[in-house]
Amino acid sequence: MPERLGPPLAEPLFERLAIIGLGLIGSSIARVARRRNLARVIVAGDASAEVRARVAELKLADVVASTPAEAARGADLVILCAPVGAMAEIGAGIAPALKPGAIVSDVGSVKSAVVAALAAHLPAGVHLVPGHPVAGTEQSGPDAGFATLFHNRWFIITPPEGAQAAPVDALVAFWRAAGSNVEIMTPAHHDLVLAITSHVPHLIAYNIVGTAADLEHVTQSEVIKFSAGGFRDFTRIAASDPTMWRDVFLNNKEAVLEMLGRFNEDLAALQRMIRWGDGQGLFELFTRTRAIRRSIIAQGQETDAPDFGRRPTGDGEKA
Amino acid sequence: MPERLGPPLAEPLFERLAIIGLGLIGSSIARVARRRNLARVIVAGDASAEVRARVAELKLADVVASTPAEAARGADLVILCAPVGAMAEIGAGIAPALKPGAIVSDVGSVKSAVVAALAAHLPAGVHLVPGHPVAGTEQSGPDAGFATLFHNRWFIITPPEGAQAAPVDALVAFWRAAGSNVEIMTPAHHDLVLAITSHVPHLIAYNIVGTAADLEHVTQSEVIKFSAGGFRDFTRIAASDPTMWRDVFLNNKEAVLEMLGRFNEDLAALQRMIRWGDGQGLFELFTRTRAIRRSIIAQGQETDAPDFGRRPTGDGEKA
Repeated sequence: MPERLGPPLAEPLFERLAIIGLGLIGSSIARVARRRNLARVIVAGDASAEVRARVAELKLADVVASTPAEAARGADLVILCAPVGAMAEIGAGIAPALKPGAIVSDVGSVKSAVVAALAAHLPAGVHLVPGHPVAGTEQSGPDAGFATLFHNRWFIITPPEGAQAAPVDALVAFWRAAGSNVEIMTPAHHDLVLAITSHVPHLIAYNIVGTAADLEHVTQSEVIKFSAGGFRDFTRIAASDPTMWRDVFLNNKEAVLEMLGRFNEDLAALQRMIRWGDGQGLFELFTRTRAIRRSIIAQGQETDAPDFGRRPTGDGEKA
Repeated sequence: MPERLGPPLAEPLFERLAIIGLGLIGSSIARVARRRNLARVIVAGDASAEVRARVAELKLADVVASTPAEAARGADLVILCAPVGAMAEIGAGIAPALKPGAIVSDVGSVKSAVVAALAAHLPAGVHLVPGHPVAGTEQSGPDAGFATLFHNRWFIITPPEGAQAAPVDALVAFWRAAGSNVEIMTPAHHDLVLAITSHVPHLIAYNIVGTAADLEHVTQSEVIKFSAGGFRDFTRIAASDPTMWRDVFLNNKEAVLEMLGRFNEDLAALQRMIRWGDGQGLFELFTRTRAIRRSIIAQGQETDAPDFGRRPTGDGEKA
């Protein structure tokens, strides 16, 4: 188990860090970079004037820029924290401003599509090293971020074929200093793993919340009232950023459809067990699934407190 | 919003309360009954010698009984806290021991099947008033319970046709004093509402955890490592008691299959949107689902803290 976030580094890892897109993830990177002295100068670029104003108020960066090119100019490390669908345009925008030897990275939830979108635009001599922090909350915007968001979470680096070792190592060092554990894999394998651990779970959560909203014999007010039976868990991830998730599904189509196909097959088998009263089959599955949660807790990726340790509004005491 | 659990009542609501089955729910009832003085004598009955020993150690009851009949004898209120599939046998067991005028209730997650299972056995002059607390955690057993489990949660009472008003009112008073909000509906409507707010969510959570465990191109170790992307939320409810949930699906078959049919239709539509790249359709659904969570939070049925307010092992600081 890693320690908590350490003290600021004596020497920063990068001279100039540009973060493009200051939402939940981008603003958390800015915060941890400041807290741990990961870069001498932090530049924040965002297309929204409202976000830029808030970033200035929160003092999240040394420089606030209004275009990607302006933000990226002269940076040693540029991290794109925008929805996956916006990557190609941002890549085209920053290309002329990039300094030779700069590392361009990102935090997109899909990697093959991002590699394709960016590789087409980046000039020779710039290092593309995409990545993905497996961390987040259902909230969005610069106020939602916090410095420990990545702490004890995995950061996956997906170097394109032929990537050089030095820029990969530099990105590993950055994310380790941000508190993450780092894993390296191919973009295609990343997209398959995340399809099952993240994309399909989001899809079925969005789906059941939609189904529940559209019933005619059960009112929406009843769904809300009695949500503590399990449904409310799904509403959390179904409250995630719509633009980001639209882009994930459009850009990881094959892997999502593959995993969804397996989910559907298994669900059909389960449905059949219910229809034919196969109690033994249900019991066996329900017993097997308990073990997975125990492993997730044992590896520090989840709280061991019952009910996530949550305390709903008005529910003060315990015991 | 109701206050926190109040002080003990000056006069108990029942002389003798029998709780049959001292798991998460039964032991929580024992705790809140003691804390708020809801009954002068609390009797705990459980078929497991291990559970009975633990109940005695924890001092959860005044009397510990080893058979349902022994527990129910002379009680004014008997609450069956056993899996739905065990209700008929327990009903047959307690029938000869029940005092005239006694109220028999339960906490099963399915109500039509419980009414049918119990009504066949109970003698005339005994009042059957089934109920269901929409509350719980993924943990099981007498140590998992706590007195505030029902606080600010809904308790649904489903009186069978022809039920008298006085015993229903007495049960309403009991659960209000336990901190719950009480709603009354028919057993059939309850089963439909809970199919969507609880049973189908559990089913799809069990299902995706099973799907993830059975992949050949993604290892189980990868699923566990990268579960923070969304998957781990599902493992919580997929860690719930297997016997209880087997019985729920076997005993609420029609409503579950009906709601699952709708879920599947909606998922097929979503799958098609992904395949054909309908970003607008995805965006619209993902926006609509956010509003439901806001309502659940506004009604005090969910915490408003990001990520359920959970702090995984080793993740100390925030901000």
